[in-house]
Amino acid sequence: MIRQKAVILLSGGLDSTTVLAMAAEDFDVTALSFRYGQKHTFELDRAEATAKHYKVKEHIVIDLDPEPFKGSALTGSSPVPQSRADINSEIPSTYVPARNTIFLSIALGIAETRDARHIFIGVNSLDYSGYPDCRPEFIKAFQNLANLATRDAVNGKPPTIHAPLLHLTKAEIIKRGTDLGVDYGMTMSCYQPDKAGQSCGLCDACILRLRGFKNNNLTDPVKYRQTR
Amino acid sequence: MIRQKAVILLSGGLDSTTVLAMAAEDFDVTALSFRYGQKHTFELDRAEATAKHYKVKEHIVIDLDPEPFKGSALTGSSPVPQSRADINSEIPSTYVPARNTIFLSIALGIAETRDARHIFIGVNSLDYSGYPDCRPEFIKAFQNLANLATRDAVNGKPPTIHAPLLHLTKAEIIKRGTDLGVDYGMTMSCYQPDKAGQSCGLCDACILRLRGFKNNNLTDPVKYRQTR
Repeated sequence: MIRQKAVILLSGGLDSTTVLAMAAEDFDVTALSFRYGQKHTFELDRAEATAKHYKVKEHIVIDLDPEPFKGSALTGSSPVPQSRADINSEIPSTYVPARNTIFLSIALGIAETRDARHIFIGVNSLDYSGYPDCRPEFIKAFQNLANLATRDAVNGKPPTIHAPLLHLTKAEIIKRGTDLGVDYGMTMSCYQPDKAGQSCGLCDACILRLRGFKNNNLTDPVKYRQTR
Repeated sequence: MIRQKAVILLSGGLDSTTVLAMAAEDFDVTALSFRYGQKHTFELDRAEATAKHYKVKEHIVIDLDPEPFKGSALTGSSPVPQSRADINSEIPSTYVPARNTIFLSIALGIAETRDARHIFIGVNSLDYSGYPDCRPEFIKAFQNLANLATRDAVNGKPPTIHAPLLHLTKAEIIKRGTDLGVDYGMTMSCYQPDKAGQSCGLCDACILRLRGFKNNNLTDPVKYRQTR
């Protein structure tokens, strides 16, 4: 049986790695990562290692001009917020303008050139930082756009945007990945790892991740400089 | 009075230059151009000259990895179609996968970092090559996405996507631009100009353009190697 093709956005973090593990079972995968001026480029090394581990057909790393991403704490000189009590309360300074819109748009182009009818993205709208482009209504609007934006779409073959983690808690995501045998030691979620690749334990991404492992009575295999 | 800010997609062609002339009257302009592996990079020189002529506040040229654009006659080794009789009949090989989706997405990010509430694009759905991402329904779907994709949108300030040429014929566009004093000798529409910057006169872009001038009883000021 010929396996269908899929493009998967792979950051090297916990969520996208779980999505890769889910999709690798059924699809021929083109993994897609971006170098967009993020401080935490460690994640790209993890993405590369993960892509190899899952024997993806192809791993594309796109260099994106950092211009549109200026002003975010993830790309600029302002500090990454730490130890935020209520992560869902407001959109934090780590928000990156139009990031998922741009990533999905490029995935759309790559999917069409690869004749792939499936695009996977690891967004999550429960345990997340309140980013507007991680919400169900955003994914729905992008699907609506993809349904008419390309030649494939006009020819009745638009790609399906899959966001299988959209309605899962971080704990449920980790449970799902663990059941699939994901080695989370390969992944990197921290926004500001040190030079040795240790996570900070204090940024939103670390807090959500640690909480997810704790709720599963599991120990996060990655190394932290400190934890709350 | 403080002028509002706008981001304008500027290719250096006839359409986007007309849009710039229209918008420059009322807005503080950030012009945005892309180097995406297109063969006809002459247009970028024209974009730069045009941006200077209209004294835009800022002209950003983004280098885009040509990866998603492979396979188009505008970026690859296949020939640009010539002398097509019925330009609107099918999507030609000059179609570039997801191009306007990607360009608008990056414009969305740049608009947000510039606090601009307006994005202009020179798409046209009458005298065009049948590209899916030049149609009214595409612009509408992108507006729908922009209404919820960014922090500005969540805060009740989504940008408006303006496509003022959407329902104009090429002749009407040229009429409008001429009335605004646009020097079309500055622009470049050809998909395959020669090294001296002369237009071929045979590709879809040249055919549509020549027809537009003819219908206005005007002479196109750019130089052609040959015309039908």
